[in-house]
Amino acid sequence: MDLTRLSLEQLSGGLRRGEWSAADLARCCADNHQRHEPVLQAYKTWNGEGAAVTAGLADQLLARGVDLGPLMGLPVSVKDLYAVRGLPTFAGSVEALGAAWEQPGPLMAGLERQLVPVMGKTHTVEFAFGGIGVNAHWGTPRNPWKVAEHRIPGGSSSGAGVSLAQGSAVLALGTDTAGSVRIPASVTGQAGLKLTHGRWPQEGIVPLSPSLDTPGILARSVEDLVFGFRAIEQGLGRAPAPIIAPEALSGLRLGRVDAFFLDGADPAVVAVYDRAMTQLAALGASVRGAELPGCNDAYDIFRQGGLAAPEFCAFLKAELPGRMDRLDPVVRLRVEGAASLSSVDYLLRVRALREAAQRALPVFRTADVLVTPTVAVTPPRLDALQDPEAYRHANMLVLRNTSIANLLGLCAVTLPIGLDAQGLPVGLQLMAAPWAEERLLAAALLIESHLGKPADVLGAPDFLQ
Amino acid sequence: MDLTRLSLEQLSGGLRRGEWSAADLARCCADNHQRHEPVLQAYKTWNGEGAAVTAGLADQLLARGVDLGPLMGLPVSVKDLYAVRGLPTFAGSVEALGAAWEQPGPLMAGLERQLVPVMGKTHTVEFAFGGIGVNAHWGTPRNPWKVAEHRIPGGSSSGAGVSLAQGSAVLALGTDTAGSVRIPASVTGQAGLKLTHGRWPQEGIVPLSPSLDTPGILARSVEDLVFGFRAIEQGLGRAPAPIIAPEALSGLRLGRVDAFFLDGADPAVVAVYDRAMTQLAALGASVRGAELPGCNDAYDIFRQGGLAAPEFCAFLKAELPGRMDRLDPVVRLRVEGAASLSSVDYLLRVRALREAAQRALPVFRTADVLVTPTVAVTPPRLDALQDPEAYRHANMLVLRNTSIANLLGLCAVTLPIGLDAQGLPVGLQLMAAPWAEERLLAAALLIESHLGKPADVLGAPDFLQ
Repeated sequence: MDLTRLSLEQLSGGLRRGEWSAADLARCCADNHQRHEPVLQAYKTWNGEGAAVTAGLADQLLARGVDLGPLMGLPVSVKDLYAVRGLPTFAGSVEALGAAWEQPGPLMAGLERQLVPVMGKTHTVEFAFGGIGVNAHWGTPRNPWKVAEHRIPGGSSSGAGVSLAQGSAVLALGTDTAGSVRIPASVTGQAGLKLTHGRWPQEGIVPLSPSLDTPGILARSVEDLVFGFRAIEQGLGRAPAPIIAPEALSGLRLGRVDAFFLDGADPAVVAVYDRAMTQLAALGASVRGAELPGCNDAYDIFRQGGLAAPEFCAFLKAELPGRMDRLDPVVRLRVEGAASLSSVDYLLRVRALREAAQRALPVFRTADVLVTPTVAVTPPRLDALQDPEAYRHANMLVLRNTSIANLLGLCAVTLPIGLDAQGLPVGLQLMAAPWAEERLLAAALLIESHLGKPADVLGAPDFLQ
Repeated sequence: MDLTRLSLEQLSGGLRRGEWSAADLARCCADNHQRHEPVLQAYKTWNGEGAAVTAGLADQLLARGVDLGPLMGLPVSVKDLYAVRGLPTFAGSVEALGAAWEQPGPLMAGLERQLVPVMGKTHTVEFAFGGIGVNAHWGTPRNPWKVAEHRIPGGSSSGAGVSLAQGSAVLALGTDTAGSVRIPASVTGQAGLKLTHGRWPQEGIVPLSPSLDTPGILARSVEDLVFGFRAIEQGLGRAPAPIIAPEALSGLRLGRVDAFFLDGADPAVVAVYDRAMTQLAALGASVRGAELPGCNDAYDIFRQGGLAAPEFCAFLKAELPGRMDRLDPVVRLRVEGAASLSSVDYLLRVRALREAAQRALPVFRTADVLVTPTVAVTPPRLDALQDPEAYRHANMLVLRNTSIANLLGLCAVTLPIGLDAQGLPVGLQLMAAPWAEERLLAAALLIESHLGKPADVLGAPDFLQ
């Protein structure tokens, strides 16, 4: 039995009832890893042995009645931007960043205290600077759907979604500056959560753009996202409120934003999205057209380079001098754009984004969440992106719909709603007001309970068939 | 009897006991204003009639037993950067900034709810961009000491200290980005408090450099500062802890930082400072030499222009386009420096300051507060600063010692400790760890209780003799 196909709730319950051990779980993840990693390539650093030791400790403590928290003994994968004790942090770059980046920040420390086995550190776009998922230094993980075609895994948390698909972890830590959790979740058929900026601390996570960086999680269902979200909140010393979806969809007000978010969309993606919307309306949800003020202005700033290029460039210069020349060409391309931006223009961008965020807020008076496709195009094949211009174009298309939540300070979720005409997963993005994670997750849970869990909605990817 | 020479504690007590009315107080302030304003020139906008109306309302409510807070009926002056209902905000510029800048922010709204009579809006350096106190558009207030010499009043809250000296207000609101509360307080013989960045909200106050801007207060003694501090905290909806100075000085650990802070100091100022230190040590305080790590690095950044020029420039461009060409030449000089700074270099400065602030913190393990002269030179005569180069040199000298608390994120107080050889007040600066205002004020209160209150330490300025 592949334990990794059970929900986190089931897994943690079974652990405590003695139906299986944390060691069983870690072993199951290791087996799946061994079987699928040669093709899928999710991990930069595998930590099977370390995870087994942690799992063994968790089992011993559970046997003595010591419960350290909901994620105790549940194997996770960690994007290689997080400092994890004893594992090098490459952040997708040519060389490990040094011992300072093996000191866990508060989020990771909270998981350590829950004795969470870390199966390994997953691939990332170098310094998380890109939405496609490619990495010239360490290779690009393979999208688990239509594996023969080597479609993009989504980025920058490029190994995170793949690690869940291959069954080598049951929860994946990622980061999201413009979509880097939601894009890989969406294109690999997982659920993903991008938090409000500032909700979870960024310390101990290699920064890309501190003004917009957020930690986040990927999971195999919204139900698991909720479980992971509450467990991490608890690890941070907070008392998380229960997140309970109401039974009926009739109380849910969905604001469907087509302007901007369907521009340039693939008709095959829109078809899946339309079908889901129709379905939700038929089940009683209120689906109304909505506009998101501030969205175009924010995206204009993003297209000009946003805040990331100068913020990342300052980090590199201050903390990793000499690295600039060794960057992946697709990353260097974007960083070099920073050089020309003046301090005043940078600050004008910061102001304009803050102002756009203010203008966006009133939309949440009439909608609980806004809905859009997470990624409005079919994940392209890797071989179509060799040309830098093609890469740049695809990168902007892929980031388009997710970037808005970061730029406007919103929190957001993605969940799978079907396969498009080419057999690739389509994600539904829900966006909620800043700090409204509980409301957002309750809405997503409600939708999942009506549309079905990812495994039911999508079936199994072909590499498992 | 000049009521304005009483402490805030005495004034508020007498009000509630019916010994005098708020109207009496406001009238007393107005009389002093009428007598001394022609020479001292503290105010951009006088609001005697409005203050009398507020005072009358306060009296009616107090007569009915309605007590709206500690500052109720106590007349204040407000730096002309704060939005105050019904009064234009010029921020020292040629033209009022418009109706948006008459909407009080949270701090001012808290004073409104306490029915605090606003006697008027005091002069400021244009957009607070300078430490000397000059203003080419509206004139420069006169230092109340040695009035015939027209020495600088200190800036940028140039009218704030003068308003207290002339007895037209009993508490003055200022702002402090690099010393703009402490410098005018020090050179006019008042006490002044610069808060930790973020402790009081900046909304409703015209920004200069949002990364370092802080509201602050000037008062005629540390005792009054404490009273004002707690009243404003209460106005912000907080429950302020009592601030009680211990009886004996023997528990107080003063870290005396001479390196950097005495560089370029006038011997006459150092003599007064040394005498105060000797006195405090003789009274039992522990006075030890200390170093403030990070201080030189932070000041280097400040000398290169710091963060203010680009941050202010972005504000001007976004909110007051067209104003650049109408700036006071000494301000324009500094703003134009912003144009050449790149976004990456700006962000490197932000990082370097944050890092310097981290390095500074451990000094507070062995010292409760650090001590330095507030301004290490005698306030120069205005006529010596006509040449731009002379202005620039004097401006940097005057800002030198105070700028460090802003750059390193500390809170700080100044209190008068004597007159220098030229008969001008010398201030003692105390700096404490971020968010340690209560400890800072308790230390300052203790020192004042041993060295004496400003009126006793300094005597009366010559314009009153």
